[in-house]
Amino acid sequence: MKENTAKSKKSQERSKETKSRILGAAVLLFSQKGYDTTSVSEICTFAGVSKGAFFYHFSTKRALFLELLDNWLLDLEKSMEDIVKTSPNVPDALLNMTGIIKNVTNSSGGKLPLFLQFWSEATRDKEVWKATVSYYKKYRKYFAKIIERGIKEGSFKKVDLNVVSNMIVSFAIGLLLQELISSDEEDWEKLSREGLDMILQMLRG
Amino acid sequence: MKENTAKSKKSQERSKETKSRILGAAVLLFSQKGYDTTSVSEICTFAGVSKGAFFYHFSTKRALFLELLDNWLLDLEKSMEDIVKTSPNVPDALLNMTGIIKNVTNSSGGKLPLFLQFWSEATRDKEVWKATVSYYKKYRKYFAKIIERGIKEGSFKKVDLNVVSNMIVSFAIGLLLQELISSDEEDWEKLSREGLDMILQMLRG
Repeated sequence: MKENTAKSKKSQERSKETKSRILGAAVLLFSQKGYDTTSVSEICTFAGVSKGAFFYHFSTKRALFLELLDNWLLDLEKSMEDIVKTSPNVPDALLNMTGIIKNVTNSSGGKLPLFLQFWSEATRDKEVWKATVSYYKKYRKYFAKIIERGIKEGSFKKVDLNVVSNMIVSFAIGLLLQELISSDEEDWEKLSREGLDMILQMLRG
Repeated sequence: MKENTAKSKKSQERSKETKSRILGAAVLLFSQKGYDTTSVSEICTFAGVSKGAFFYHFSTKRALFLELLDNWLLDLEKSMEDIVKTSPNVPDALLNMTGIIKNVTNSSGGKLPLFLQFWSEATRDKEVWKATVSYYKKYRKYFAKIIERGIKEGSFKKVDLNVVSNMIVSFAIGLLLQELISSDEEDWEKLSREGLDMILQMLRG
Protein backbone atom coordinates (compact mmCIF):
# COMPACT_ATOMS: atom_id res chain seq x y z
CA MET A 1 0.00 0.00 0.00
CA LYS A 2 2.71 2.39 1.11
CA GLU A 3 4.82 1.41 -1.86
CA ASN A 4 1.92 2.07 -4.23
CA THR A 5 1.40 5.56 -2.88
CA ALA A 6 5.08 6.27 -3.26
CA LYS A 7 4.99 5.00 -6.81
CA SER A 8 1.94 7.05 -7.69
CA LYS A 9 3.52 10.12 -6.17
CA LYS A 10 6.61 9.55 -8.26
CA SER A 11 4.56 9.14 -11.41
CA GLN A 12 2.62 12.30 -10.59
CA GLU A 13 5.88 14.18 -10.28
CA ARG A 14 7.09 12.79 -13.58
CA SER A 15 3.84 13.78 -15.23
CA LYS A 16 4.15 17.30 -13.84
CA GLU A 17 7.70 17.54 -15.07
CA THR A 18 6.68 16.33 -18.55
CA LYS A 19 3.95 18.96 -18.68
CA SER A 20 6.30 21.76 -17.70
CA ARG A 21 8.85 20.56 -20.29
CA ILE A 22 6.13 20.78 -22.97
CA LEU A 23 5.12 24.25 -21.80
CA GLY A 24 8.74 25.43 -21.81
CA ALA A 25 9.39 24.09 -25.31
CA ALA A 26 6.19 25.69 -26.60
CA VAL A 27 7.07 29.14 -25.19
CA LEU A 28 10.43 29.00 -26.89
CA LEU A 29 9.19 27.74 -30.25
CA PHE A 30 6.08 29.96 -30.40
CA SER A 31 8.19 33.03 -29.60
CA GLN A 32 10.94 32.21 -32.08
CA LYS A 33 8.97 30.70 -34.97
CA GLY A 34 5.43 31.89 -34.36
CA TYR A 35 2.40 29.99 -33.14
CA ASP A 36 1.07 29.25 -36.62
CA THR A 37 4.23 27.68 -37.95
CA THR A 38 5.05 25.57 -34.88
CA SER A 39 3.66 22.03 -35.00
CA VAL A 40 2.83 19.68 -32.14
CA SER A 41 5.53 17.32 -33.49
CA GLU A 42 8.18 20.01 -33.20
CA ILE A 43 7.12 20.81 -29.64
CA CYS A 44 7.36 17.10 -28.76
CA THR A 45 10.80 16.72 -30.35
CA PHE A 46 12.12 19.83 -28.62
CA ALA A 47 10.69 18.79 -25.24
CA GLY A 48 11.83 15.20 -25.71
CA VAL A 49 8.37 13.73 -25.07
CA SER A 50 6.07 11.46 -27.08
CA LYS A 51 2.95 12.64 -28.86
CA GLY A 52 0.98 10.44 -26.50
CA ALA A 53 2.38 12.39 -23.56
CA PHE A 54 1.52 15.66 -25.28
CA PHE A 55 -2.10 14.72 -25.88
CA TYR A 56 -2.41 13.32 -22.38
CA HIS A 57 -1.80 16.85 -21.09
CA PHE A 58 -3.30 19.01 -23.85
CA SER A 59 -6.21 18.27 -26.16
CA THR A 60 -4.89 20.62 -28.88
CA LYS A 61 -2.08 23.04 -29.64
CA ARG A 62 -4.58 25.81 -28.93
CA ALA A 63 -5.36 24.38 -25.48
CA LEU A 64 -1.63 24.54 -24.70
CA PHE A 65 -1.50 28.11 -26.00
CA LEU A 66 -4.41 29.13 -23.76
CA GLU A 67 -2.85 27.45 -20.72
CA LEU A 68 0.43 29.30 -21.27
CA LEU A 69 -1.38 32.59 -21.22
CA ASP A 70 -3.50 31.59 -18.28
CA ASN A 71 -0.37 30.81 -16.27
CA TRP A 72 1.32 34.00 -17.28
CA LEU A 73 -1.68 36.20 -16.46
CA LEU A 74 -2.21 34.43 -13.14
CA ASP A 75 1.40 35.28 -12.20
CA LEU A 76 0.77 38.89 -13.18
CA GLU A 77 -2.38 38.99 -11.10
CA LYS A 78 -0.61 37.52 -8.10
CA SER A 79 2.13 40.17 -8.35
CA MET A 80 -0.51 42.91 -8.51
CA GLU A 81 -2.41 41.52 -5.52
CA ASP A 82 0.83 41.36 -3.49
CA ILE A 83 1.52 45.01 -4.28
CA VAL A 84 -2.01 46.09 -3.31
CA LYS A 85 -1.71 44.23 -0.01
CA THR A 86 1.65 45.70 0.95
CA SER A 87 1.01 49.31 -0.14
CA PRO A 88 -0.32 51.85 2.38
CA ASN A 89 -2.85 53.34 -0.07
CA VAL A 90 -4.17 53.05 -3.61
CA PRO A 91 -2.00 55.76 -5.26
CA ASP A 92 1.14 54.10 -3.86
CA ALA A 93 -0.09 50.68 -4.98
CA LEU A 94 -0.60 51.94 -8.53
CA LEU A 95 2.83 53.56 -8.62
CA ASN A 96 4.44 50.39 -7.27
CA MET A 97 2.75 48.43 -10.05
CA THR A 98 4.82 50.24 -12.68
CA GLY A 99 7.73 48.14 -11.42
CA ILE A 100 5.88 45.10 -12.76
CA ILE A 101 6.35 46.31 -16.32
CA LYS A 102 10.10 45.93 -15.86
CA ASN A 103 9.73 42.49 -14.30
CA VAL A 104 7.37 41.34 -17.00
CA THR A 105 9.88 42.20 -19.69
CA ASN A 106 12.94 40.96 -17.86
CA SER A 107 11.52 37.70 -16.61
CA SER A 108 9.25 36.90 -19.52
CA GLY A 109 11.93 34.78 -21.20
CA GLY A 110 10.40 35.38 -24.59
CA LYS A 111 6.81 35.21 -23.43
CA LEU A 112 6.02 38.76 -24.49
CA PRO A 113 5.97 38.04 -28.22
CA LEU A 114 3.44 35.37 -27.28
CA PHE A 115 1.27 38.08 -25.81
CA LEU A 116 1.14 39.62 -29.28
CA GLN A 117 0.42 36.37 -31.02
CA PHE A 118 -2.46 35.90 -28.66
CA TRP A 119 -4.07 39.04 -30.04
CA SER A 120 -3.31 38.06 -33.56
CA GLU A 121 -4.89 34.65 -33.00
CA ALA A 122 -7.88 36.23 -31.26
CA THR A 123 -8.89 37.97 -34.46
CA ARG A 124 -9.06 34.63 -36.28
CA ASP A 125 -10.03 32.05 -33.66
CA LYS A 126 -13.30 32.26 -31.75
CA GLU A 127 -12.09 30.34 -28.67
CA VAL A 128 -8.97 32.47 -28.33
CA TRP A 129 -11.08 35.57 -28.93
CA LYS A 130 -13.45 34.65 -26.10
CA ALA A 131 -10.55 34.07 -23.71
CA THR A 132 -8.90 37.37 -24.68
CA VAL A 133 -12.06 39.42 -24.25
CA SER A 134 -12.67 37.86 -20.83
CA TYR A 135 -9.10 38.74 -19.74
CA TYR A 136 -9.51 42.39 -20.67
CA LYS A 137 -12.84 42.62 -18.98
CA LYS A 138 -11.29 41.11 -15.88
CA TYR A 139 -8.41 43.61 -15.85
CA ARG A 140 -10.73 46.55 -16.42
CA LYS A 141 -12.97 45.35 -13.57
CA TYR A 142 -9.94 44.83 -11.36
CA PHE A 143 -8.70 48.38 -11.87
CA ALA A 144 -12.22 49.77 -11.48
CA LYS A 145 -12.32 48.08 -8.06
CA ILE A 146 -8.94 49.54 -7.10
CA ILE A 147 -9.96 53.07 -8.18
CA GLU A 148 -13.21 52.68 -6.25
CA ARG A 149 -11.20 51.77 -3.17
CA GLY A 150 -9.07 54.89 -3.76
CA ILE A 151 -12.20 57.03 -3.81
CA LYS A 152 -13.47 55.42 -0.59
CA GLU A 153 -10.18 55.90 1.24
CA GLY A 154 -10.26 59.57 0.20
CA SER A 155 -7.25 59.47 -2.15
CA PHE A 156 -9.27 60.22 -5.30
CA LYS A 157 -12.16 62.44 -6.26
CA LYS A 158 -15.30 60.82 -7.69
CA VAL A 159 -14.64 59.72 -11.28
CA ASP A 160 -16.21 57.49 -13.90
CA LEU A 161 -14.74 54.08 -12.96
CA ASN A 162 -15.23 52.64 -16.43
CA VAL A 163 -13.42 55.51 -18.15
CA VAL A 164 -10.50 55.53 -15.70
CA SER A 165 -10.00 51.77 -15.56
CA ASN A 166 -10.06 51.65 -19.35
CA MET A 167 -7.50 54.46 -19.47
CA ILE A 168 -5.15 52.66 -17.10
CA VAL A 169 -5.46 49.30 -18.89
CA SER A 170 -5.00 50.94 -22.31
CA PHE A 171 -1.98 52.90 -21.07
CA ALA A 172 -0.43 49.71 -19.65
CA ILE A 173 -1.01 47.73 -22.86
CA GLY A 174 0.44 50.49 -25.01
CA LEU A 175 3.50 50.76 -22.77
CA LEU A 176 4.11 47.02 -22.77
CA LEU A 177 3.87 46.81 -26.53
CA GLN A 178 6.21 49.70 -27.12
CA GLU A 179 8.67 48.44 -24.55
CA LEU A 180 8.59 45.05 -26.18
CA ILE A 181 9.88 46.41 -29.46
CA SER A 182 12.23 49.09 -28.22
CA SER A 183 13.32 48.12 -24.73
CA ASP A 184 16.74 49.77 -25.02
CA GLU A 185 15.66 53.00 -26.63
CA GLU A 186 13.67 54.48 -23.76
CA ASP A 187 13.51 54.24 -19.99
CA TRP A 188 10.06 52.66 -19.99
CA GLU A 189 9.83 52.33 -16.25
CA LYS A 190 10.43 56.06 -15.88
CA LEU A 191 7.93 56.88 -18.64
CA SER A 192 5.27 54.67 -17.09
CA ARG A 193 5.91 56.03 -13.59
CA GLU A 194 5.72 59.66 -14.71
CA GLY A 195 2.72 58.99 -16.94
CA LEU A 196 0.91 57.33 -14.07
CA ASP A 197 1.91 60.22 -11.81
CA MET A 198 0.00 62.56 -14.13
CA ILE A 199 -3.02 60.23 -14.12
CA LEU A 200 -2.90 60.20 -10.30
CA GLN A 201 -2.73 64.01 -10.18
CA MET A 202 -5.86 64.07 -12.28
CA LEU A 203 -7.58 61.51 -10.05
CA ARG A 204 -6.72 63.52 -6.95
CA GLY A 205 -8.53 66.46 -8.58
CA MET B 1 5.68 59.50 -80.68
CA LYS B 2 2.24 60.41 -79.40
CA GLU B 3 1.09 56.82 -79.78
CA ASN B 4 4.07 55.58 -77.76
CA THR B 5 3.28 57.95 -74.91
CA ALA B 6 -0.32 56.78 -74.89
CA LYS B 7 0.82 53.18 -74.86
CA SER B 8 3.27 53.74 -72.05
CA LYS B 9 0.60 55.55 -70.07
CA LYS B 10 -1.73 52.62 -70.54
CA SER B 11 0.95 50.15 -69.45
CA GLN B 12 1.71 52.30 -66.42
CA GLU B 13 -1.95 52.22 -65.45
CA ARG B 14 -2.04 48.47 -65.88
CA SER B 15 1.06 48.10 -63.74
CA LYS B 16 -0.50 50.27 -61.03
CA GLU B 17 -3.67 48.20 -61.12
CA THR B 18 -1.68 44.96 -60.87
CA LYS B 19 0.16 46.31 -57.84
CA SER B 20 -3.02 47.34 -56.07
CA ARG B 21 -4.57 43.91 -56.82
CA ILE B 22 -1.56 42.25 -55.19
CA LEU B 23 -1.81 44.55 -52.15
CA GLY B 24 -5.56 43.86 -51.83
CA ALA B 25 -5.08 40.10 -52.03
CA ALA B 26 -2.28 40.22 -49.45
CA VAL B 27 -4.37 42.22 -46.95
CA LEU B 28 -7.15 39.67 -47.19
CA LEU B 29 -4.95 36.58 -46.96
CA PHE B 30 -2.64 37.92 -44.22
CA SER B 31 -5.66 38.90 -42.11
CA GLN B 32 -7.50 35.63 -42.61
CA LYS B 33 -4.66 33.13 -42.60
CA GLY B 34 -1.83 35.00 -40.98
CA TYR B 35 1.34 36.45 -42.51
CA ASP B 36 3.49 33.41 -41.74
CA THR B 37 1.23 30.87 -43.39
CA THR B 38 0.46 32.89 -46.54
CA SER B 39 2.79 32.19 -49.47
CA VAL B 40 3.66 34.42 -52.43
CA SER B 41 2.07 31.78 -54.69
CA GLU B 42 -1.24 32.06 -52.87
CA ILE B 43 -1.18 35.84 -53.11
CA CYS B 44 -0.52 35.59 -56.87
CA THR B 45 -3.32 33.06 -57.41
CA PHE B 46 -5.78 35.13 -55.39
CA ALA B 47 -4.82 38.36 -57.18
CA GLY B 48 -4.78 36.64 -60.58
CA VAL B 49 -1.24 37.78 -61.41
CA SER B 50 1.96 35.94 -62.35
CA LYS B 51 4.89 35.49 -60.01
CA GLY B 52 6.91 37.61 -62.44
CA ALA B 53 4.46 40.46 -61.92
CA PHE B 54 4.67 40.01 -58.15
CA PHE B 55 8.45 40.21 -58.03
CA TYR B 56 8.45 43.14 -60.44
CA HIS B 57 6.62 45.12 -57.74
CA PHE B 58 7.96 43.58 -54.53
CA SER B 59 11.35 42.05 -53.83
CA THR B 60 9.99 39.82 -51.03
CA LYS B 61 6.81 39.01 -49.13
CA ARG B 62 8.22 41.12 -46.32
CA ALA B 63 8.69 44.12 -48.63
CA LEU B 64 4.99 43.84 -49.52
CA PHE B 65 4.12 43.59 -45.83
CA LEU B 66 6.10 46.75 -45.04
CA GLU B 67 4.51 48.64 -47.95
CA LEU B 68 1.01 47.72 -46.72
CA LEU B 69 1.78 49.18 -43.34
CA ASP B 70 3.45 52.22 -44.82
CA ASN B 71 0.33 52.96 -46.86
CA TRP B 72 -1.95 52.43 -43.92
CA LEU B 73 0.07 54.64 -41.58
CA LEU B 74 0.38 57.35 -44.24
CA ASP B 75 -3.43 57.43 -44.51
CA LEU B 76 -3.67 57.70 -40.74
CA GLU B 77 -1.15 60.54 -40.70
CA LYS B 78 -3.02 62.41 -43.44
CA SER B 79 -6.28 62.12 -41.48
CA MET B 80 -4.56 63.48 -38.38
CA GLU B 81 -2.99 66.38 -40.29
CA ASP B 82 -6.40 67.28 -41.78
CA ILE B 83 -7.92 67.37 -38.31
CA VAL B 84 -5.13 69.56 -36.92
CA LYS B 85 -5.56 72.00 -39.84
CA THR B 86 -9.33 72.32 -39.49
CA SER B 87 -9.51 72.49 -35.66
CA PRO B 88 -9.53 75.89 -33.90
CA ASN B 89 -7.06 74.78 -31.21
CA VAL B 90 -5.01 71.82 -29.98
CA PRO B 91 -7.50 70.44 -27.38
CA ASP B 92 -10.25 70.38 -30.04
CA ALA B 93 -7.89 68.76 -32.54
CA LEU B 94 -7.03 65.98 -30.07
CA LEU B 95 -10.69 65.36 -29.24
CA ASN B 96 -11.58 65.27 -32.94
CA MET B 97 -8.86 62.66 -33.46
CA THR B 98 -10.78 60.16 -31.33
CA GLY B 99 -13.19 59.93 -34.28
CA ILE B 100 -10.32 58.40 -36.26
CA ILE B 101 -10.37 55.30 -34.05
CA LYS B 102 -13.87 54.56 -35.31
CA ASN B 103 -12.86 55.16 -38.91
CA VAL B 104 -9.76 53.02 -38.58
CA THR B 105 -11.81 50.08 -37.37
CA ASN B 106 -14.70 50.54 -39.78
CA SER B 107 -12.72 51.21 -42.91
CA SER B 108 -9.77 48.96 -42.20
CA GLY B 109 -11.30 46.08 -44.13
CA GLY B 110 -9.38 43.57 -42.12
CA LYS B 111 -6.21 45.61 -41.87
CA LEU B 112 -6.25 45.80 -38.08
CA PRO B 113 -5.27 42.19 -37.49
CA LEU B 114 -2.34 43.03 -39.74
CA PHE B 115 -1.37 45.75 -37.30
CA LEU B 116 -1.00 43.01 -34.68
CA GLN B 117 0.96 40.71 -36.92
CA PHE B 118 3.30 43.59 -37.55
CA TRP B 119 4.22 43.65 -33.86
CA SER B 120 4.50 39.92 -33.75
CA GLU B 121 6.83 39.94 -36.74
CA ALA B 122 8.82 42.81 -35.26
CA THR B 123 9.92 40.62 -32.38
CA ARG B 124 11.39 38.08 -34.79
CA ASP B 125 12.52 40.05 -37.85
CA LYS B 126 15.14 42.78 -37.63
CA GLU B 127 13.92 44.73 -40.68
CA VAL B 128 10.32 44.77 -39.46
CA TRP B 129 11.55 45.67 -36.00
CA LYS B 130 13.47 48.69 -37.34
CA ALA B 131 10.42 49.90 -39.25
CA THR B 132 8.15 49.48 -36.21
CA VAL B 133 10.47 51.32 -33.85
CA SER B 134 10.76 54.20 -36.32
CA TYR B 135 6.94 54.44 -36.59
CA TYR B 136 6.48 54.70 -32.85
CA LYS B 137 9.19 57.26 -32.53
CA LYS B 138 7.53 59.24 -35.29
CA TYR B 139 4.13 59.17 -33.59
CA ARG B 140 5.58 60.12 -30.24
CA LYS B 141 7.43 63.02 -31.86
CA TYR B 142 4.29 64.06 -33.72
CA PHE B 143 2.23 64.21 -30.52
CA ALA B 144 5.05 65.96 -28.68
CA LYS B 145 4.92 68.66 -31.37
CA ILE B 146 1.14 68.99 -31.04
CA ILE B 147 1.33 69.28 -27.24
CA GLU B 148 4.08 71.86 -27.59
CA ARG B 149 1.83 73.87 -29.89
CA GLY B 150 -0.94 73.57 -27.27
CA ILE B 151 1.39 75.02 -24.63
CA LYS B 152 2.39 77.88 -26.97
CA GLU B 153 -1.22 78.76 -27.81
CA GLY B 154 -1.97 78.87 -24.06
CA SER B 155 -4.28 75.81 -23.97
CA PHE B 156 -1.96 73.73 -21.80
CA LYS B 157 0.33 74.27 -18.85
CA LYS B 158 4.03 73.42 -19.21
CA VAL B 159 4.44 69.63 -19.12
CA ASP B 160 7.11 67.04 -19.94
CA LEU B 161 6.51 66.53 -23.69
CA ASN B 162 8.10 63.08 -23.73
CA VAL B 163 5.93 61.79 -20.88
CA VAL B 164 2.70 63.23 -22.28
CA SER B 165 3.25 62.17 -25.89
CA ASN B 166 4.12 58.66 -24.70
CA MET B 167 0.96 58.61 -22.59
CA ILE B 168 -1.21 59.61 -25.55
CA VAL B 169 0.40 57.13 -27.95
CA SER B 170 0.20 54.30 -25.36
CA PHE B 171 -3.42 55.12 -24.61
CA ALA B 172 -4.28 55.11 -28.34
CA ILE B 173 -2.50 51.79 -28.95
CA GLY B 174 -4.21 50.15 -25.97
CA LEU B 175 -7.61 51.41 -27.11
CA LEU B 176 -7.12 50.22 -30.68
CA LEU B 177 -6.07 46.76 -29.53
CA GLN B 178 -8.97 46.35 -27.17
CA GLU B 179 -11.45 47.68 -29.69
CA LEU B 180 -10.10 45.28 -32.24
CA ILE B 181 -11.02 42.26 -30.17
CA SER B 182 -14.24 43.49 -28.58
CA SER B 183 -15.70 46.09 -30.89
CA ASP B 184 -19.31 45.32 -29.97
CA GLU B 185 -18.88 45.03 -26.23
CA GLU B 186 -18.01 48.64 -25.46
CA ASP B 187 -18.57 52.08 -26.92
CA TRP B 188 -14.88 52.61 -27.66
CA GLU B 189 -15.34 56.02 -29.20
CA LYS B 190 -17.04 57.24 -26.03
CA LEU B 191 -14.38 55.63 -23.82
CA SER B 192 -11.58 57.20 -25.83
CA ARG B 193 -13.26 60.62 -25.91
CA GLU B 194 -13.89 60.65 -22.15
CA GLY B 195 -10.44 59.28 -21.39
CA LEU B 196 -8.86 61.97 -23.53
CA ASP B 197 -11.09 64.56 -21.85
CA MET B 198 -9.50 63.63 -18.53
CA ILE B 199 -6.01 63.85 -20.03
CA LEU B 200 -6.88 67.32 -21.40
CA GLN B 201 -8.16 68.45 -18.01
CA MET B 202 -4.82 67.44 -16.58
CA LEU B 203 -2.92 69.26 -19.34
CA ARG B 204 -4.95 72.43 -18.73
CA GLY B 205 -3.78 72.21 -15.11
